[in-house]
Amino acid sequence: MERPSRPVSSHSAYRQAGVDVDAQERALARVRELAAKTVTPGVLAGIGGFGGLFRPDLEDVDDPVLVASADGVGTKLAVARMAGDFSSVGRDLVNHCVDDVLVQGARPLFFLDYVGAGTLEPARVVELVGGVADGCRENGCALLGGETAEMPGFYRPGDYELVGFVVGLVDRRALLGPERVGPGDVLVGLPSSGLHTNGYSLARRVLFDRLGLAPDAPAPWAEGRRTVAQELLAVHRSYLAPLAALLRHPGLHALAHVTGGGLTDNLPRALPGGTRAVVRTGVWEVPAIFRFLQEHGEVSDEEMRRVFNLGIGMVAVVAADAVGEVLASLRASGERAVVLGGVEAGGSGVDYRAGGG
Amino acid sequence: MERPSRPVSSHSAYRQAGVDVDAQERALARVRELAAKTVTPGVLAGIGGFGGLFRPDLEDVDDPVLVASADGVGTKLAVARMAGDFSSVGRDLVNHCVDDVLVQGARPLFFLDYVGAGTLEPARVVELVGGVADGCRENGCALLGGETAEMPGFYRPGDYELVGFVVGLVDRRALLGPERVGPGDVLVGLPSSGLHTNGYSLARRVLFDRLGLAPDAPAPWAEGRRTVAQELLAVHRSYLAPLAALLRHPGLHALAHVTGGGLTDNLPRALPGGTRAVVRTGVWEVPAIFRFLQEHGEVSDEEMRRVFNLGIGMVAVVAADAVGEVLASLRASGERAVVLGGVEAGGSGVDYRAGGG
Repeated sequence: MERPSRPVSSHSAYRQAGVDVDAQERALARVRELAAKTVTPGVLAGIGGFGGLFRPDLEDVDDPVLVASADGVGTKLAVARMAGDFSSVGRDLVNHCVDDVLVQGARPLFFLDYVGAGTLEPARVVELVGGVADGCRENGCALLGGETAEMPGFYRPGDYELVGFVVGLVDRRALLGPERVGPGDVLVGLPSSGLHTNGYSLARRVLFDRLGLAPDAPAPWAEGRRTVAQELLAVHRSYLAPLAALLRHPGLHALAHVTGGGLTDNLPRALPGGTRAVVRTGVWEVPAIFRFLQEHGEVSDEEMRRVFNLGIGMVAVVAADAVGEVLASLRASGERAVVLGGVEAGGSGVDYRAGGG
Repeated sequence: MERPSRPVSSHSAYRQAGVDVDAQERALARVRELAAKTVTPGVLAGIGGFGGLFRPDLEDVDDPVLVASADGVGTKLAVARMAGDFSSVGRDLVNHCVDDVLVQGARPLFFLDYVGAGTLEPARVVELVGGVADGCRENGCALLGGETAEMPGFYRPGDYELVGFVVGLVDRRALLGPERVGPGDVLVGLPSSGLHTNGYSLARRVLFDRLGLAPDAPAPWAEGRRTVAQELLAVHRSYLAPLAALLRHPGLHALAHVTGGGLTDNLPRALPGGTRAVVRTGVWEVPAIFRFLQEHGEVSDEEMRRVFNLGIGMVAVVAADAVGEVLASLRASGERAVVLGGVEAGGSGVDYRAGGG
């Protein structure tokens, strides 16, 4: 599969102006190989070459709706740089984007990436796009194309920007969202794998600026088993696998992807007007990394709930009479799902209540 | 229409870590207004909120194929920064992306943007995304969503990254490309509006580093009528309007978007193996800006043809017996199209020959 990237000059004057073209071409060749491994039946390979072509399978879709999302990895990139390891942020990016279309009920069709740098070091580009390709393969999503831009003087040496775009497909009648939700619905939380892609500005300030920890130091909250960088670079989960089987279940009403803004800002996006989410704060254990950041950053509970996911990366809003089935299905996928609370009439936003369910 | 952007915390500790949330929110509110003006009938507005929803009109499409492309503006952004004007690069980005799917025969459905900066200055974000929205409106393409990322310390103050992503639709039987092209076909060139989005590293080196010109100085090649910055920021054209009427014309075989790599690298992407493009170099006038850059940059002809579009931004590969109709249609759209040469059997690449047609 051709990677439909802007071709570049291979001539001397252009190189003098700061663009190392051979390095780009070596990396692009490897990147094309990696993208080829993500090909799904929808990809029309070997045709054209300016844009990627995808033929969606509409066999069982009455009223196809495309769902698209753009995202970056944010300052998690700075942690990758400190750790000298860009191999995982591509998976963060793909999983984040896949989760964003999943909450509408859509499965991902294809993905495109953008990598920007002052100088494209081939090994780094391959790490970055290799991670993107891994993420695509894990989600059954084709890496249809991308752009690799060398912008001398714009990025600091060693810095890489990574941006992703995903397009998913959902039958209109299977769209999830607040329209389906009502009082009495139950909130089912799915565990996160760490910070995912949010709160890194605050986390870096606490861990590196305030406490002066080194990226390769043992993480104080992890009982010495993992380094600070390993903990911070834990990959943002995709929730496609555990939720795929439930996407057509009539009892699954909506999903909330807990990104920046935390439960406080994201749960209400799954609720209709005139309702609020009631969350019992004692029913799940907030992972040690968040407790450590709160203590050493002197951050309030309210703030923590807006900046971090606190261990819950996705929330399913489920009809009360379907909770048993949904939990059983999630358990069968190996999910440690937990009932967080429910939807109640009146008010808005999230009402945090102490104590267990 | 909600702009499905990552929501952000509005709390103090987060701001201390370098993220100015109020500024983001003011800009995002304005950006949502701008995006709302690009809504087309396919947009499913007011539903969900994590990803943008688009319902393609498949009424007259037998075998729908999605065409996707990702792109950036490259170091044209540095010129925008020098000129203190980010209002036009959004249109560059949209038009570039639209042209990249147009060459496959596709019309654009929707677009998503990504804006990254160290600190999001609201006025700048509105300039950038305002330009994107203008470009979308001009191309009948919905601005379906986007991401606005504040990454303190990652970007230099005042720098903005701008990345775009477009999805277009084409009926499989109407796909353009090398498969349709053969010896005897005619190359029809459509004029560019300037450098478009390529060759800026070299142009900046010549104009600013070597000659020491100021962005607001009169452009020496423009007889004092326009400034250097105005000339360099001339907007990358969209060729959708003049070519839309021809997309189902059986005589239009392929299109080549002349971006980085120039005619030399891009024309061959529209040709089948075993053929070459013969281009008569005397049949169009290379615009003064390119002649000036060549002279003062001491750049060879060969190099110029790979780094710059030299006044031809799009090439249509046309059946010999359809040239009259195609030229008439283009003329009716106000295009000053020119016959550049033709496709010949044997060899590969582009064969430049002196003299007129």
